[in-house]
Amino acid sequence: MGILVVGTVAFDAIETPFGKTDKIIGGAATYIGLSASYFTKKIDLVSVVGDDFPQETVKMLQGKGVNMEGLQVMKGQKTFFWSGLYHNDMNTRDTLVTELNVLADFNPVVPASAQEDEFVMLGNLTPVVQEKVLAQMKNRPKLVVLDTMNFWMDVALEDLKRVLKKVDVLAVNDAEARQLSGEYSLPRAAQKILAMGPKYLIIKKGEHGALLFNKEQVFYAPALPLEDVFDPTGAGDTFAGGFIGYIASTKDVSFENMKRAIIYGSAMASFCVEKFGTERLLNLTQKEVEGRVQQFVDLVQFDIDLV
Amino acid sequence: MGILVVGTVAFDAIETPFGKTDKIIGGAATYIGLSASYFTKKIDLVSVVGDDFPQETVKMLQGKGVNMEGLQVMKGQKTFFWSGLYHNDMNTRDTLVTELNVLADFNPVVPASAQEDEFVMLGNLTPVVQEKVLAQMKNRPKLVVLDTMNFWMDVALEDLKRVLKKVDVLAVNDAEARQLSGEYSLPRAAQKILAMGPKYLIIKKGEHGALLFNKEQVFYAPALPLEDVFDPTGAGDTFAGGFIGYIASTKDVSFENMKRAIIYGSAMASFCVEKFGTERLLNLTQKEVEGRVQQFVDLVQFDIDLV
Repeated sequence: MGILVVGTVAFDAIETPFGKTDKIIGGAATYIGLSASYFTKKIDLVSVVGDDFPQETVKMLQGKGVNMEGLQVMKGQKTFFWSGLYHNDMNTRDTLVTELNVLADFNPVVPASAQEDEFVMLGNLTPVVQEKVLAQMKNRPKLVVLDTMNFWMDVALEDLKRVLKKVDVLAVNDAEARQLSGEYSLPRAAQKILAMGPKYLIIKKGEHGALLFNKEQVFYAPALPLEDVFDPTGAGDTFAGGFIGYIASTKDVSFENMKRAIIYGSAMASFCVEKFGTERLLNLTQKEVEGRVQQFVDLVQFDIDLV
Repeated sequence: MGILVVGTVAFDAIETPFGKTDKIIGGAATYIGLSASYFTKKIDLVSVVGDDFPQETVKMLQGKGVNMEGLQVMKGQKTFFWSGLYHNDMNTRDTLVTELNVLADFNPVVPASAQEDEFVMLGNLTPVVQEKVLAQMKNRPKLVVLDTMNFWMDVALEDLKRVLKKVDVLAVNDAEARQLSGEYSLPRAAQKILAMGPKYLIIKKGEHGALLFNKEQVFYAPALPLEDVFDPTGAGDTFAGGFIGYIASTKDVSFENMKRAIIYGSAMASFCVEKFGTERLLNLTQKEVEGRVQQFVDLVQFDIDLV
């Protein structure tokens, strides 16, 4: 029932129309782990940082139930750093700085205690690293979810396609689904991508919600119309963490349960964007999470009697 | 229980990535009337055409239950003509030609038989013309819905704001809601617009669905993920026609019923875009409409037990 999470643990510097930050804690695995920790307590993180990474963040994550045994700390090296600038519409951003640092030679090692995890969340990273993680699992996990981005479609498409054959769920945004499939229509894109390997496809559309496809069905989850999106950084990873966290906690990988998982993931993401970085995720209560899920129910609920 | 529909009756020439048409029948009132005719049979159309407009189209609309008494036919003059080119994403279009013709001096006259209609759909037109129609109603209608566009915000904002005070529901797209309110956030935009007069605001987001706001509530209706959007012309008007048609047929102007009306409107719009112009709207069956609404139910339905 454990979740193996692989992804970056990083420093981010973020500028949005609402303000800017110095180097703060970021990274896909950080957001995924924090978000999933609201649903289940057996989470194993695999990542790499330099010795400039603060020990108190490692302890904070451990306090949330995230096993940090798989976090490699490279002596004399620096943690991955990303800096980005969001524009007014918050849907577009410019990358100002990418310093790979320790990530350049990252060779993931899955600790023995995590090699039998039933759920695997492959956060956005080089497809080859994602593949190396899968290769270390003792059994075929119950569910493997993969996040990726347009960059890997540009520079490592064949690697990505090979990994896609080994995963159950792919999560990408609408532009990436279109790029990967060469189809503008999302239902057509979905069918082409499902033919590449994954049984399920999640298409994330930001403020427009998310779609879940399998070969026969489609589900449209809305996004909450938010008064302020303060900082979108990490929203997709927080969504993914809530999604796999909910599934791991229910041990149900049916399409019906994935719908619920998408609502929980969307609820977690809606918190994430309310403050800079991981701040809003650090002290959520169960009641806040359930209250937010209720808002999603209210948002889309309607009642039509068809004959 | 009748619906008064005012709007253009026009010729359109359309080019999309799927093909192009010669002059075909278009116009907001045409789409609204056709769409509403699937829900109720007392529909009164007010518009203007030249004597180049085909009599068989007038008869076709009459056959659908649309009273054409309020259609002025101007001798020796030409019908409004619009030509547009859609780009690959179908969300952006260039207007190639706009020939106002008879529309330039349109002075709407509401026939006596329509002056007591309880429902009024003010299709996109000069705000002053929309206002003149309202002024001819004998009683305050039960529900007045207004459609408008960015063009009127640019050139006739004060007129538009005056009319907004007299309507119940405003329907605009997301860019227009942002322009009218000066707010990027749609919930903030909605509250500012609701303060201008309308009790309800519908924000149409095309392939991303539609939002319905009042001062206390919000509803998110998805759009069906369609394999092919063949021609988006008229989709917004078809949506509006289904919306007011459903409300007129149920005589229920509550928020809960407006949610259902939005689903019916969305279903009608999803048919509209499947073929060029009005073609797909001409011979729908009740069963097809109900089947499409069922697809919307299936698309968003999920079941979460909250404690």
